[in-house]
Amino acid sequence: MPTYHVEMMEGRTLEQKKKLVAELTRVSVEVLAVKPESVDVIITDIKRENWATGGKLWSEPRD
Amino acid sequence: MPTYHVEMMEGRTLEQKKKLVAELTRVSVEVLAVKPESVDVIITDIKRENWATGGKLWSEPRD
Amino acid sequence: MPTYHVEMMEGRTLEQKKKLVAELTRVSVEVLAVKPESVDVIITDIKRENWATGGKLWSEPRD
Amino acid sequence: MPTYHVEMMEGRTLEQKKKLVAELTRVSVEVLAVKPESVDVIITDIKRENWATGGKLWSEPRD
Amino acid sequence: MPTYHVEMMEGRTLEQKKKLVAELTRVSVEVLAVKPESVDVIITDIKRENWATGGKLWSEPRD
Amino acid sequence: MPTYHVEMMEGRTLEQKKKLVAELTRVSVEVLAVKPESVDVIITDIKRENWATGGKLWSEPRD
Repeated sequence: MPTYHVEMMEGRTLEQKKKLVAELTRVSVEVLAVKPESVDVIITDIKRENWATGGKLWSEPRD
Repeated sequence: MPTYHVEMMEGRTLEQKKKLVAELTRVSVEVLAVKPESVDVIITDIKRENWATGGKLWSEPRD
Repeated sequence: MPTYHVEMMEGRTLEQKKKLVAELTRVSVEVLAVKPESVDVIITDIKRENWATGGKLWSEPRD
Repeated sequence: MPTYHVEMMEGRTLEQKKKLVAELTRVSVEVLAVKPESVDVIITDIKRENWATGGKLWSEPRD
Repeated sequence: MPTYHVEMMEGRTLEQKKKLVAELTRVSVEVLAVKPESVDVIITDIKRENWATGGKLWSEPRD
Repeated sequence: MPTYHVEMMEGRTLEQKKKLVAELTRVSVEVLAVKPESVDVIITDIKRENWATGGKLWSEPRD
């Protein structure tokens, strides 16, 4: 603990994921005073056809 | 906000997803008095081998 | 299935929750062709101090 | 209800999943006094590049 | 890993929770061949007014 | 998007939460090249009697 779940649109590179989890963990250690090895991060890559905002899937054209 | 997570068996068509998120958003606007653009819906398609009810995966034959 | 998780700011009335789950279920039956009793909805009331957008908690004053 | 979400590293066999959901359901019936058919289990297979502990993805080499 | 999220109706005793997490962990060790200390279980107690099945909250009378 | 869910043991101060969501958002903007207002963070405070590691609730004494 803490445990992070990050949902983001698919397409991020491995480099971005590596940097993101490193930074999230560093921030958690600083702010929450926890040990790094207690921080878990689980990323979920969401397809554009599976995320909607305002009633419209992100796979659809937007105005 | 609100944010919806919908877990359903894989296999739904894009048309069904489009209609579902549109309807969920419309209902939220009506009942919760929120703006449509504040409604997020994330769909998770679950494989039959990853969902069990009554101790049996849905990929297995049922009586 | 399907199973819905709805996260929304705390403060909604019981009447709103009753109407919301009835409507979500009705919509699911129509769009996904499932039986009503297979639809589960779990609501999570989020405190304003536990939801942030744009890096700021909703318990904080906004411009 | 109860509803279980199990997140685990991808790679488990169908046999392991079948046994796991059967056992989780049996344990729930015993401890919580619920009917087996009320127990749902949803498994999420996580890719090693999507799970980090201690700030490092599990797809990366560990000391 | 694995990480369990268990959603159940509020009202379970501490004894039931203690037994449940012990059993879930034992089962995971047996079936998934993981170390006990790698198993996390997070329980969410759901209020009856926040869970609906078949379009009706569990806080409402059922036929 | 991205949307973060952070589960942590209850007891963190409002100051810690404010700092955490600000930092998570800053990091996301840097690494993922998103706009700050697209970043949502939902915090869940978990009671010690609802989190177990190694088969034992954190409300129980540890060796």
